[in-house]
Amino acid sequence: MTHRAQSAVALGGGHGLHASLQALRRLVDELVVDDLTAIVTVADNGGSSGRLRGEFGVLPPGDLRMALAALCGDDDWGATWAEVLQHRFAGDGEMRGHVIGNLLIVGLWERLGDHVKALDWVGKLLGATGRVLPMALTPLDITAQVRGLDRSDPDALTTVRGQVEVATTEGVIDSVQLDPADPVACPEAVAAIRDADWVVIGPGSWFTSVIPHLLVPELRRALAETDARVIIVLNLDEQAGETGGFGPDDHLAVLSEHAPDLKVHAVLADRARVGEGLADLEHVVHAHGARLFVDDVAADDGSPRHDPAKLAAAYARIVEHS
Amino acid sequence: MTHRAQSAVALGGGHGLHASLQALRRLVDELVVDDLTAIVTVADNGGSSGRLRGEFGVLPPGDLRMALAALCGDDDWGATWAEVLQHRFAGDGEMRGHVIGNLLIVGLWERLGDHVKALDWVGKLLGATGRVLPMALTPLDITAQVRGLDRSDPDALTTVRGQVEVATTEGVIDSVQLDPADPVACPEAVAAIRDADWVVIGPGSWFTSVIPHLLVPELRRALAETDARVIIVLNLDEQAGETGGFGPDDHLAVLSEHAPDLKVHAVLADRARVGEGLADLEHVVHAHGARLFVDDVAADDGSPRHDPAKLAAAYARIVEHS
Repeated sequence: MTHRAQSAVALGGGHGLHASLQALRRLVDELVVDDLTAIVTVADNGGSSGRLRGEFGVLPPGDLRMALAALCGDDDWGATWAEVLQHRFAGDGEMRGHVIGNLLIVGLWERLGDHVKALDWVGKLLGATGRVLPMALTPLDITAQVRGLDRSDPDALTTVRGQVEVATTEGVIDSVQLDPADPVACPEAVAAIRDADWVVIGPGSWFTSVIPHLLVPELRRALAETDARVIIVLNLDEQAGETGGFGPDDHLAVLSEHAPDLKVHAVLADRARVGEGLADLEHVVHAHGARLFVDDVAADDGSPRHDPAKLAAAYARIVEHS
Repeated sequence: MTHRAQSAVALGGGHGLHASLQALRRLVDELVVDDLTAIVTVADNGGSSGRLRGEFGVLPPGDLRMALAALCGDDDWGATWAEVLQHRFAGDGEMRGHVIGNLLIVGLWERLGDHVKALDWVGKLLGATGRVLPMALTPLDITAQVRGLDRSDPDALTTVRGQVEVATTEGVIDSVQLDPADPVACPEAVAAIRDADWVVIGPGSWFTSVIPHLLVPELRRALAETDARVIIVLNLDEQAGETGGFGPDDHLAVLSEHAPDLKVHAVLADRARVGEGLADLEHVVHAHGARLFVDDVAADDGSPRHDPAKLAAAYARIVEHS
């Protein structure tokens, strides 16, 4: 069975989005997908991104850089520039921890005065397969209502502010919000979602890289109204801090709590991770009106990372059977 | 009269070399020159370069970056990347004063572990007309013997250390040296001089950007032994600090004091700058066994900078009449 090539949009941030994009670019090579867009969280307040954001009031560039690197051309040119853009300075001096690509992106923003145009220039430099866009044009912070931080009242909710602080909280996250609550969405990102055949959400840090997209009002509206089929890619494991103790069904539950109007077409989970919980998960997924795809998508090295080749095969199977 | 296209090597640093390269690239466009190499001083200890050198122990990248920018492709691609690489961060934070291209070059050096290969990558990024090489592979310092700094003995010589300190000394420079005195020359730079048809020395900060090349033993030997014809481009003006009170003949005199074995073919001077001193300068130039070319090469804005188009015409005339 053959399909016309389709457009795909991937939402996320960090390593999860990196793996998803490395998978989706294979589908471009295989002519399953002809148009690929990454939409990236811009709430990071740590590391090189956090320092640049603090110094220049710009969007945090790190997750954008990582997404661009994932899409770099697979020739010597693309691979070398991706490696250089991912290069992090070591040592003990003022540059320690800064990443070349972050500095280049900030310089392009200052020079060109246009977020999207600047990222397109980096994409051209890398010979990138696809486009990388920020989810919003306003730098923003994640805040979370967290339970268990107040020793005098274990049920009380405490507000935790900042992506780093939320991702490493010792409490249990009840919900996350954006501050400002109504950031300006990137218009090209809104348009990409509306025009897409497929939207892939996750994998990634659930509360700090995945759910934030659903909290940008214009993106959420576009997701509710698009004809695209939405694939949720579940994480391989809980993450200490933000999703400690979470099973696959919990991931789905908090997603729909934050975006009850999100229509989900397919949920992709790792076979080993689901294990004996298959019937239960199937039940939950069906209750969301979606179809469960269970596949071997974990890296062979035992890390909680997705394997791009396996993930690509799983995506192809979902597209094929939809 | 037509010539076969020739290879040209330009020695210098900073704004002087930038202007000379902007002129020489026009000769490449006009097919007068078919092969262009810039050889750049690596003694800078100030600004962004000085900070990076101090932090990472690398060659100071600033003059190399500026030379690369001068050779950038003249399409939108080359012009945009040159502008971005020349972008200097402002503000009050830790990045203030750093230049994107410097950071990119240092990152490439760390990643690729090869000075020349890394600079070639930046050249490819810019679509550069020609190649940019460091004069040495060892970071080095300029020291100067300076008269007039010792109030108790105005004739005493004081040692001043560092490119910035030498360039801004309030005394009169007697001579400059390199530390280490025998740095490792860049082999590709030595080969370029040996293979060149033309070597252009200057314009530029005379003691801190021009003469240092003549103090690298292997470069000096190559300059003495090459069949290339050597053009000395005199500065338009004295520079407060390093060449205060210097006339054109003084520039030539200190050059030959530092490199008595340098064979000079042509000396290019600005007509207005030479003025009534023409006969005297001609005498001095002939005494060096060279020919004097006097031309209008100054920028129209009254700055002490060479105009690239006028400089290109003057170079073409020298090549034509030699």
